[in-house]
Amino acid sequence: MTPEKIPVGVVGATGLAGQQLLLALADHPRFEVRRLAASARSAGKAYAEALRAEGGGSRWTASPHPPAAFAGLTVEDAASFDPEGLGLVFSAVDGDAARPLEERLARLVPVVSTTSAFRYDEDVPLVIPPVNPDHADLLEFQRRRRGWKGFVAPIPNCTTTGLATTLAPLDRAFGVKRVWMTSLQAVSGAGRSPGVVALDVVDNVVPYIPREEEKVERETRKILGRLAEGRVAEHAMGISCTCTRVSVLDGHTESVFVELERPASPGEVAEAMQSWRGAAEGFDLPSAPKRWIEVHDDPYRPQPRLDREAGGGMTTSVGRIRAERLFDSGVKYVLVSHNTKAGAGKGAVLLAELLLARGQI
Amino acid sequence: MTPEKIPVGVVGATGLAGQQLLLALADHPRFEVRRLAASARSAGKAYAEALRAEGGGSRWTASPHPPAAFAGLTVEDAASFDPEGLGLVFSAVDGDAARPLEERLARLVPVVSTTSAFRYDEDVPLVIPPVNPDHADLLEFQRRRRGWKGFVAPIPNCTTTGLATTLAPLDRAFGVKRVWMTSLQAVSGAGRSPGVVALDVVDNVVPYIPREEEKVERETRKILGRLAEGRVAEHAMGISCTCTRVSVLDGHTESVFVELERPASPGEVAEAMQSWRGAAEGFDLPSAPKRWIEVHDDPYRPQPRLDREAGGGMTTSVGRIRAERLFDSGVKYVLVSHNTKAGAGKGAVLLAELLLARGQI
Amino acid sequence: MTPEKIPVGVVGATGLAGQQLLLALADHPRFEVRRLAASARSAGKAYAEALRAEGGGSRWTASPHPPAAFAGLTVEDAASFDPEGLGLVFSAVDGDAARPLEERLARLVPVVSTTSAFRYDEDVPLVIPPVNPDHADLLEFQRRRRGWKGFVAPIPNCTTTGLATTLAPLDRAFGVKRVWMTSLQAVSGAGRSPGVVALDVVDNVVPYIPREEEKVERETRKILGRLAEGRVAEHAMGISCTCTRVSVLDGHTESVFVELERPASPGEVAEAMQSWRGAAEGFDLPSAPKRWIEVHDDPYRPQPRLDREAGGGMTTSVGRIRAERLFDSGVKYVLVSHNTKAGAGKGAVLLAELLLARGQI
Amino acid sequence: MTPEKIPVGVVGATGLAGQQLLLALADHPRFEVRRLAASARSAGKAYAEALRAEGGGSRWTASPHPPAAFAGLTVEDAASFDPEGLGLVFSAVDGDAARPLEERLARLVPVVSTTSAFRYDEDVPLVIPPVNPDHADLLEFQRRRRGWKGFVAPIPNCTTTGLATTLAPLDRAFGVKRVWMTSLQAVSGAGRSPGVVALDVVDNVVPYIPREEEKVERETRKILGRLAEGRVAEHAMGISCTCTRVSVLDGHTESVFVELERPASPGEVAEAMQSWRGAAEGFDLPSAPKRWIEVHDDPYRPQPRLDREAGGGMTTSVGRIRAERLFDSGVKYVLVSHNTKAGAGKGAVLLAELLLARGQI
Repeated sequence: MTPEKIPVGVVGATGLAGQQLLLALADHPRFEVRRLAASARSAGKAYAEALRAEGGGSRWTASPHPPAAFAGLTVEDAASFDPEGLGLVFSAVDGDAARPLEERLARLVPVVSTTSAFRYDEDVPLVIPPVNPDHADLLEFQRRRRGWKGFVAPIPNCTTTGLATTLAPLDRAFGVKRVWMTSLQAVSGAGRSPGVVALDVVDNVVPYIPREEEKVERETRKILGRLAEGRVAEHAMGISCTCTRVSVLDGHTESVFVELERPASPGEVAEAMQSWRGAAEGFDLPSAPKRWIEVHDDPYRPQPRLDREAGGGMTTSVGRIRAERLFDSGVKYVLVSHNTKAGAGKGAVLLAELLLARGQI
Repeated sequence: MTPEKIPVGVVGATGLAGQQLLLALADHPRFEVRRLAASARSAGKAYAEALRAEGGGSRWTASPHPPAAFAGLTVEDAASFDPEGLGLVFSAVDGDAARPLEERLARLVPVVSTTSAFRYDEDVPLVIPPVNPDHADLLEFQRRRRGWKGFVAPIPNCTTTGLATTLAPLDRAFGVKRVWMTSLQAVSGAGRSPGVVALDVVDNVVPYIPREEEKVERETRKILGRLAEGRVAEHAMGISCTCTRVSVLDGHTESVFVELERPASPGEVAEAMQSWRGAAEGFDLPSAPKRWIEVHDDPYRPQPRLDREAGGGMTTSVGRIRAERLFDSGVKYVLVSHNTKAGAGKGAVLLAELLLARGQI
Repeated sequence: MTPEKIPVGVVGATGLAGQQLLLALADHPRFEVRRLAASARSAGKAYAEALRAEGGGSRWTASPHPPAAFAGLTVEDAASFDPEGLGLVFSAVDGDAARPLEERLARLVPVVSTTSAFRYDEDVPLVIPPVNPDHADLLEFQRRRRGWKGFVAPIPNCTTTGLATTLAPLDRAFGVKRVWMTSLQAVSGAGRSPGVVALDVVDNVVPYIPREEEKVERETRKILGRLAEGRVAEHAMGISCTCTRVSVLDGHTESVFVELERPASPGEVAEAMQSWRGAAEGFDLPSAPKRWIEVHDDPYRPQPRLDREAGGGMTTSVGRIRAERLFDSGVKYVLVSHNTKAGAGKGAVLLAELLLARGQI
Repeated sequence: MTPEKIPVGVVGATGLAGQQLLLALADHPRFEVRRLAASARSAGKAYAEALRAEGGGSRWTASPHPPAAFAGLTVEDAASFDPEGLGLVFSAVDGDAARPLEERLARLVPVVSTTSAFRYDEDVPLVIPPVNPDHADLLEFQRRRRGWKGFVAPIPNCTTTGLATTLAPLDRAFGVKRVWMTSLQAVSGAGRSPGVVALDVVDNVVPYIPREEEKVERETRKILGRLAEGRVAEHAMGISCTCTRVSVLDGHTESVFVELERPASPGEVAEAMQSWRGAAEGFDLPSAPKRWIEVHDDPYRPQPRLDREAGGGMTTSVGRIRAERLFDSGVKYVLVSHNTKAGAGKGAVLLAELLLARGQI
């Protein structure tokens, strides 16, 4: 007998992250999207209608067409959205509205969020299922401490995901000491409104993304840290980043230099990454790829356009693994990670699958 | 003795068209920018400060740095801007605010505008100096009829400029009967806020620009029309357009098919365009290029990146002139015109130069 | 009982069109790729090895990885390739070598080709299966006349495919008199070696593609013509094109203006296209899409990035259907067609499927 | 009295680096281009004619039009080019032909080269005029040792130039210990034939440029080294690079992390760079910019499109200077350097100006 699907809602459903959530939830075996919410401007309209932009076009951006299953759902006003009857709410709300809204909902139901509103709270874990599924235990502490029926479980920033995922097997096998990372980020990471203006990236690179570097540095240490006594002790590794924007649609590329604690040849690093099964192996997560990391020998890989869709957008692709001789032990490599799939909508769905498998939803 | 410069103001100074106006007015021999105005958000700040965007960067987009002469000017609130003491105001105001604002100013001083607010009013001429300088006479009629001290003199849409400029010598020499035009427009035409989102043009073409086609069709017939009895009788030519957006920073490309009244070989068409001196030849206009139209033999030209800056951005570049054999007489060609110079800021300054030379300012 | 698959060879297998052929033939229900051939440089190497470029990367461009089934096949030298034992050869050979090579092969087996070598020969049909499948009868005439065991069946130029496909239902329903088309073509159309240099399309449009316009004009009239007495009588319609290159990876966009013989509203045109089932309806062709033409209401569609993969890359997407008022009866629209799928590799496979279904292979 | 100009020749004049040399030499106050040479294919043709590509276009890429002064010069065959009568030859020859050709010419006259043929020879200096003008003394040693009348003076790789230029003032003021650099390189760096294929950079990043990283690492240590006893003792700093290609026309962006020997705040680093006058200050070099390094406060700068032309393409722009806290003392920053001006044609002309000023030509 097929278990009944969990009824879920998506708040912030019209934005780009919300669209990616819906794509990841279309025909999902365990979740069923029952309700959608967005800003007052969209409230009361059918979802397809709410997507209609000025000029007559559609603001749907994530794929050729919105999944038919959602086109007819009536969009509710997020400000007054009541999650009664839902087992879970996904939140992809923009800006300052996110924190009060997620708090209000989490008092009633579990909330899995793509926003940064709660990421840095001490009782809030940042979980990437293959990396630190055990951190999800902190959600129970959060629930009790705050006296909420639900909880808030955010996913990390899209640029953190690929970095933390590739550092995880390195840290386990060889110990990670210090990391320098330069990102070449895709324009979809900024969403559509306002998003990245074409003027800024045609024949250009923008060398700055506000608050991005701090997020990646802080989140990576938290994700790779150790859960103990109702909080996460951050990993002691040093991380330093420069984040840039390039003319790529989807897929963040990151150039990484790593100092390791223990000796490791490039071949051993490749093997540690390629063979890494992650810490969530026991769970059967529908959105999990066959491999969390795909290692390329071809020095021209990974490329965002060719590799972002690996593993349904959930596999981090790694290449150019070379010894970093400026350290006693070190390695340098390039990674590509899909920022709106692994790093946003589908990543949030994967986390919800983990929480369901662990009995937390 | 150098005549004194006319003191001018620029309203809408922080947007992209306003920036292009300022670039065209820096060190201008006849106009001196004394005052700037923009939205309430910018009012009271020094111009350089007003350009500062969230995140610490500058919204100045038109060149590496804003001209130093303007950085220290205090921006006034456009809504309450009083043009007292100015000989002329340039307007590059966005959206619905343009019409009431330009009307208020034009009651007091001449206004040269890059907006479409008044373009289609019967007593408002659309003047491209080399094409129809005599239409500027209509401004005097407008002034009297409306009882204003000043007037509104708009320039046409940026996509109209190159088309009307190239049709002018064709019409004079051979008669233009019908025109089919497909544009490949640059992203700067939409400005910065919101502008064209990078998501939409990376690896893509957008086949629609709201209201653009109607503007080009209507404006071209008006510009090439005949001034008589206090109004412009539109040219009888038929025009049909499809306007698209491509991943180009500056410079609109247009593919044009023309049915002519009288026989013309490609060589004769090239000669008519290349030798065309325009109707404003008697005037000494500082922003005028040496040639209004530059004809290329190389079939790979014109290209927007290589040719948009021809004649300081004021020359329309034409190439691929071929016989159009589907008509008794016809020609097809490709043109490139700089949309934010000839088609916006510098084009407006050129028009002001004409009006000054004709004694209307 | 499953019928045995036809053993086929692919000549010119390492180029971009050859790669697209292989993608379209991977796991094909009726054809099985047994042998590959390319230039002497590749001969004797395994296919995966032959793709390896200088610097260690792979020249495979059409997708993330070459289909595993072909990686181990040994590439033969096209110059001495003997098709013995094959039921069909696909040819995607570059340049001047194509004609003598295809002739040599066609003396022995049927050849379906993406090249232009034989397209304009009088006894060679240009078949797009939904448009003019009956023209394939000319292959039998060709075979007899030349005394060959096989024949050469080329597909049209990639820019012709979308145009001829959309004109077909228009011509049947309303009669097509004259056509003006401006293309915005993708860079993949030029292949990889030399292909379009990035220098030429970053922040740019190239207004010329050598010989492209003549091909489209001539081929469209031939495809839409009538087969009679051992030759195709070209359609009498007039066609005039300007072909440009833009910064798009895959998917040609075309802006089309059509004069019709008989009255047609935009709604009737949309209906004629959308409901068109093509002339190959009786045949069960595995590469055929559900619909040959998809009509969009959203004025922002079709876009190459969003619509090129419609129908597995075999559907032509049409939008912006408007009345063309410069004619007694006319219509204008924009189309997107996948240049390396419908317009090259998969289009050739579709033609082979038709020839098989008609018993010609 | 104006001194007579030195008559010079340019070998490899039709390629992109050769074009950039000619642009930098047009109307030069001290050099006069008398003769041009290229491959046999171009020999005997006027330069403008030699640039004409298949299809009728021009292979001139560096600017809208080749300088008129050179259009009529007859191109000679580089293989048999005799430099008799010239005071200097600039070489921008491609590939393996460079080394024997430059050797043949240097036996007779000084050769300033943009190629890598001789860069790593022990008696060959790599001179960036503001950084290590004294290394030019090694040319006299080279001349004597090889028994040549001339010498070969190469400029470094285009990616080295900005890095070495910014490290020079850092090293002098604070001591440079280790450097990690990730580049985002422009497509013009690869020239036109074959150059970077558009297919590879539309919506993409290519994470590998063959041999580039080794060049940058080795050259930077040599440039910043110390000349002693007839050779350059390389600087002891460690350098580690990852070089990538992005969709930018001109201007390499580099993200740099530096470990310093001595404490330095971001403000001190900015001051050391901005105030740096270089070591060639006594010389009056026509191609020198007013400032070798321009430091930006705006975190969104430098951007390649906005900053590559700073100082006529000869100024390195630096921004995002931040403390690098993973070291006892360190700094991180982003730089933009014009790869075909400072890093190729104009950089070679600057070096020739230095050699002339030092009496070595």
